[in-house]
Amino acid sequence: MLGLMQDEQLLISSLIEFAARNHADAQIVSRRVEGDLHCYTYHDAAVRARRVAAALDRLGLGFSDRVGTLAWNGYRHCELYFGIAGSGRVVHTINPRLPPEQIAWIANHAEDRVLCFDMTFLPIVKAIWSKCVTVRHWIALCEANAVPADTGIAGLRSYEEWITAESGGYAWPRFEERSAAALCYTSGTTGHPKGVLYSHRSTVLHAWGSALPDTLGLSARDCVLPVVPMFHVNAWGIPYASAMTGAKLVLPGAALDGKSVYELIESESVTLAAGVPTVWLGLLNHMAQHGRRFSTLQRTVIGGSACPPAMISTFKDTYGVTVLHAWGMTETSPLGSACTLKLKQTRLPPEEQMAVLVKQGRAMFGVEMKIVDAGGEELAWDGKTSGDLHVKGPWITKSYFKGEGGDPLVDGWFPTGDVATIDADGFMQITDRSKDVIKSGGEWISSIDIENIAMAHPAVAMAACIGVPHPKWDERPVLVVVKKPGAEVAREELLAHYHGQVANWQIPDDVIFVESIPLGATGKMQKGKLREQFKHHPLPV
Amino acid sequence: MLGLMQDEQLLISSLIEFAARNHADAQIVSRRVEGDLHCYTYHDAAVRARRVAAALDRLGLGFSDRVGTLAWNGYRHCELYFGIAGSGRVVHTINPRLPPEQIAWIANHAEDRVLCFDMTFLPIVKAIWSKCVTVRHWIALCEANAVPADTGIAGLRSYEEWITAESGGYAWPRFEERSAAALCYTSGTTGHPKGVLYSHRSTVLHAWGSALPDTLGLSARDCVLPVVPMFHVNAWGIPYASAMTGAKLVLPGAALDGKSVYELIESESVTLAAGVPTVWLGLLNHMAQHGRRFSTLQRTVIGGSACPPAMISTFKDTYGVTVLHAWGMTETSPLGSACTLKLKQTRLPPEEQMAVLVKQGRAMFGVEMKIVDAGGEELAWDGKTSGDLHVKGPWITKSYFKGEGGDPLVDGWFPTGDVATIDADGFMQITDRSKDVIKSGGEWISSIDIENIAMAHPAVAMAACIGVPHPKWDERPVLVVVKKPGAEVAREELLAHYHGQVANWQIPDDVIFVESIPLGATGKMQKGKLREQFKHHPLPV
Repeated sequence: MLGLMQDEQLLISSLIEFAARNHADAQIVSRRVEGDLHCYTYHDAAVRARRVAAALDRLGLGFSDRVGTLAWNGYRHCELYFGIAGSGRVVHTINPRLPPEQIAWIANHAEDRVLCFDMTFLPIVKAIWSKCVTVRHWIALCEANAVPADTGIAGLRSYEEWITAESGGYAWPRFEERSAAALCYTSGTTGHPKGVLYSHRSTVLHAWGSALPDTLGLSARDCVLPVVPMFHVNAWGIPYASAMTGAKLVLPGAALDGKSVYELIESESVTLAAGVPTVWLGLLNHMAQHGRRFSTLQRTVIGGSACPPAMISTFKDTYGVTVLHAWGMTETSPLGSACTLKLKQTRLPPEEQMAVLVKQGRAMFGVEMKIVDAGGEELAWDGKTSGDLHVKGPWITKSYFKGEGGDPLVDGWFPTGDVATIDADGFMQITDRSKDVIKSGGEWISSIDIENIAMAHPAVAMAACIGVPHPKWDERPVLVVVKKPGAEVAREELLAHYHGQVANWQIPDDVIFVESIPLGATGKMQKGKLREQFKHHPLPV
Repeated sequence: MLGLMQDEQLLISSLIEFAARNHADAQIVSRRVEGDLHCYTYHDAAVRARRVAAALDRLGLGFSDRVGTLAWNGYRHCELYFGIAGSGRVVHTINPRLPPEQIAWIANHAEDRVLCFDMTFLPIVKAIWSKCVTVRHWIALCEANAVPADTGIAGLRSYEEWITAESGGYAWPRFEERSAAALCYTSGTTGHPKGVLYSHRSTVLHAWGSALPDTLGLSARDCVLPVVPMFHVNAWGIPYASAMTGAKLVLPGAALDGKSVYELIESESVTLAAGVPTVWLGLLNHMAQHGRRFSTLQRTVIGGSACPPAMISTFKDTYGVTVLHAWGMTETSPLGSACTLKLKQTRLPPEEQMAVLVKQGRAMFGVEMKIVDAGGEELAWDGKTSGDLHVKGPWITKSYFKGEGGDPLVDGWFPTGDVATIDADGFMQITDRSKDVIKSGGEWISSIDIENIAMAHPAVAMAACIGVPHPKWDERPVLVVVKKPGAEVAREELLAHYHGQVANWQIPDDVIFVESIPLGATGKMQKGKLREQFKHHPLPV
């Protein structure tokens, strides 16, 4: 027997309409690529999202057709999120930091019909447009008069010209909530990128889960700054969760340097900012160099990579900002866990609280977690035993677009590729990516642990620990370090820094100082490249 | 094209399993009808809920069979919530304050197979058991040795004896999330009670919505006391939302007087308490009489009836407790709106904030609201125009059990029977029940407005404003008042109290002092009874 509740489908169009109706004058502020600030409301955003939907109808796009974006965080990108998905098409966010040939490969694989791009990315579009065989319409996210006449790109027009004639009174279609809504490709270590296809249902459920007090804790009293890009797992779903809660939304555009982010936080009275550790590193460096303070910022959400404990302390002790450590990946929409204290832990002394807060946190309802050994057997939640992290839930991937990569699930669970511990209170801590673990003499060394200790040294700006082949031990850890500008530290001093912090056999065999560490398109250190570069590095005897 | 997210169904069993896994040692504390405090954990609750499920299997109950409960808020009732629904049956909570013959009618209409009751209600069960023709098993919520031998009730056994032999390792079945999970009857003004049938989907979605920062704001750092009964719209869904968030849960049993509630709040360090205004009246009277203070209480959620502004002020100004005004009904699961400030309102002076906080608040995402005139036309959100409140969403009723009452929806919207205004910020304020509005000379007078003014008088304990038939004006307002113990106030003084607060023609024509005002089974004033009693009350000329 079925219950007798209304059969309302969970649709992304409901999110923007809810915001337009209940938070009509709440603001969306965007730093444009031109450098100026653009400010309007959820009401305005809804009207223009409806125009996008009507414009897609006029182009004759079918249900579930893909519309690509190459864009920074900004109001037009937001309108595309809601207008494309709300009208039944699929918004396909493409990471502009990928090599152009990979962008073209992705657009072709997704069979994008339309591609919308910020003018910053015109050079990319010029390079790839003729190779994107399915794209019929190229939309430049600017005013009509800002599109150069001589690009040679067939089907190019401006966004403003494209939507202006359309009706803001468009009525959103109703359809099955499991319909595809958004597509995001993730680069594996091998093979082509694979597409993760979110549904309306998964997006709305994830927004509820992410707005909870123990996740992002979003309310109509918040002002949220997603520094994490909208081309990177939908900026962790923040545009959706903000519409759901009526939070003011601040979109930083292309200006992700410390100074720009700091000024935006101050000028817009941001309460919550979200990003990856490398962005916060830039912000903290700017703050320290110029003696700045925050006036409104309460919380920063840090995810994408493990956050160095030193960064959590600096935010808290120096600036009074609570770091919310979170974990997720493209395949998990992305939020899987967040690290907030439980009632009993609020009574612990600060150092014991810190031991909790450095973890990636507890699963939110909607995500089930387990750790398993090589044979797939579930391991204990003792905070010590580490194993492969598997997850399950209504916003977790079951397979990739077009079936690429086969069936990724193991007994119905998605294997994340992360290695983690889970303690008795459910707090999960990533100890490594399974491919980054260093196997030395039959034991595992966590590259993240070794990096965190290096990051706590005042002269170290960035550190990667990689395994280098060793005839006797299989692999031995080597530390690759970028020094802070003007700072000096010797190899011996850094290695001495490890004594007493890890077992002696876990101390790196060598330190390699470099000018920079290669970062991937999502800002993560590319340790695979370092391993390749230093695979013949001579190890001390 | 469908998205490629996992097809996890939203099931109530997932809530208790989530809590057992991620909040194993979080507490559930219950005041038992015996008077003592019982304390255990979500882990324990999950084990015993699984035993309930296994015991229902052993009784041979089919999918969607109904299991009735006549019980206070307590741990065994909680186990029944999860065990009955989780195993695919329907938990049918019955209000024990209803007349016994109505309880029997409801149990028969629902076709309950099993009926579980607190020993407090043994007299009711003795009176009705032979009339409940579908009930095969009567389960007394107590130890085996506490069941009297001579009740004569066929099929009577104790809960503890019933579940003890079962396995705590029961595996929950998976099924369609729209399956029926819980049934709650609501008494209309006319005809028989009608059953509202919740689904697993509606219950889980409502839990997400209700735990958001702008609704109850529930986290693993909260300790929640639902004084609102579990037989009254599932205690506003708090048992589900607590399991979802890992909040400590405190269940007050039968002791709902001010002293007992106060002592429980203090002894268990409650942070959030939820109930109807009459309960808080008792609590505040106890606090005032004994000069008590709260040590941990931060928020009270008040719903069920409009909360007198004087009560909001007293909580805030005298005790530093934030009142969260909420609105809902059995047909809305029940939470439809909650009153929390928006960012821009946090900068208002206190008196302007109070003008917002006396409203029933903003719709949470998942609930759409509108007000309509007699012709069904939508009315403006100007905070002044009042109309019939209609709602829509995935946790709103579409029809009643067995089709009783026909199709209640109007153009897909549920008409609440409340009359309300909505302002430009989306804040809804109930001005009356449509049946309680006083129609005087072609104009409407809000009975709630008149009552709130009376309640602000220091001598008034309770006040009801009713329309009394009038030859010239159709109806005229009359105030029915219960004075505070030992307080005195004259008719003329009370009426004078209205001058300048409402238009002269809205001032009641008379005051009737009574010993008590009849309350319904859910604690609301039965103004229909008062109207009947005083329909010939002579009005002054």
